[in-house]
Amino acid sequence: MGTRCSVFIATSLDGFIARTDGSIDWLDRANATVQPGEDCGYAQFLHTIDALVMGRGTFEKVLTFPEWPYGAMPVYVLSHSIEQLPAGLPETVQLSRESPAEVVRRASASGHQHLYVDGGKVIQSFLAAGLITELTLTVIPVLLGSGLRLFGDLEADITLNVIASKVYPFGFVQNHYAVVTSRPHALDRQPN
Amino acid sequence: MGTRCSVFIATSLDGFIARTDGSIDWLDRANATVQPGEDCGYAQFLHTIDALVMGRGTFEKVLTFPEWPYGAMPVYVLSHSIEQLPAGLPETVQLSRESPAEVVRRASASGHQHLYVDGGKVIQSFLAAGLITELTLTVIPVLLGSGLRLFGDLEADITLNVIASKVYPFGFVQNHYAVVTSRPHALDRQPN
Repeated sequence: MGTRCSVFIATSLDGFIARTDGSIDWLDRANATVQPGEDCGYAQFLHTIDALVMGRGTFEKVLTFPEWPYGAMPVYVLSHSIEQLPAGLPETVQLSRESPAEVVRRASASGHQHLYVDGGKVIQSFLAAGLITELTLTVIPVLLGSGLRLFGDLEADITLNVIASKVYPFGFVQNHYAVVTSRPHALDRQPN
Repeated sequence: MGTRCSVFIATSLDGFIARTDGSIDWLDRANATVQPGEDCGYAQFLHTIDALVMGRGTFEKVLTFPEWPYGAMPVYVLSHSIEQLPAGLPETVQLSRESPAEVVRRASASGHQHLYVDGGKVIQSFLAAGLITELTLTVIPVLLGSGLRLFGDLEADITLNVIASKVYPFGFVQNHYAVVTSRPHALDRQPN
């Protein structure tokens, strides 16, 4: 069994993860309707993962939080533009210039069985490389009309199975998909 | 109560209703996995509608079918480029150059309480005009990467409620949404 790579993310009904300027006011507004203590399975998901892979956009957003939220969880920050990580982060956070396939291979060699892949561009590059094995998508009942999309171009269709589907009383619909077919030999591709 | 305008359509998980060239091979392939007799609520939906509104694209596709599938159901074909309807169609099919708001107003005056709005561009123009009241979206578990999108640009967010959600054993997820807020005064806008 290879290392699993999971996405856990919220989108608008028209498939956006943020407005064009990156703002998630619509998501904050939706979350304000959720009763305290309801996290739509996020904590439970976090318990199943061994490491986190994120891109520069997500990393810089997380740096604005009052504190680093991932404790001692290993985190791979994929970026070609970040020169070095800021001081004060846990030693488990590392900068990487590797391709998605290289990171997964190295994480796997480190014993990481389940990676949490986060951030729009990183998710798209992992999907395009055939590396995502599961997606949990929480669809917020709003149409934005424009913004940053979760999904991007693909060289071939990716077919999935529904593992679970849940409707929350506040109108979020959460679907858990497993990837069935994806591009073959993705792990053997040369990094680009 | 005004006339309801409903969408009933299938999309890929990444929000496409067809490939860029209009083909729906992916949908046909998915439908081939569905047991005979299962129509995912389509016949039941058709029983609730009084009239159908479609654009040129859907109309021309329907004309390729062996026979006109809508019987004596009133059908408004919205098109500026079709000169006249081909011979042999039921008298209940009419060509219209009206705006979405004008068609809804006239349908309403004709006693039509529930319109089925079909076709990507027509659905987008009705949504943008604040005229859609309900959407039943059947999400096929496949990512296409590119194609013709169901949803388009909007001048303002549209918020929705989930009325019902259903997972079919063959992996389709069908969500029935009601529009909560949309652009105000849409019916009073001048046709564009």
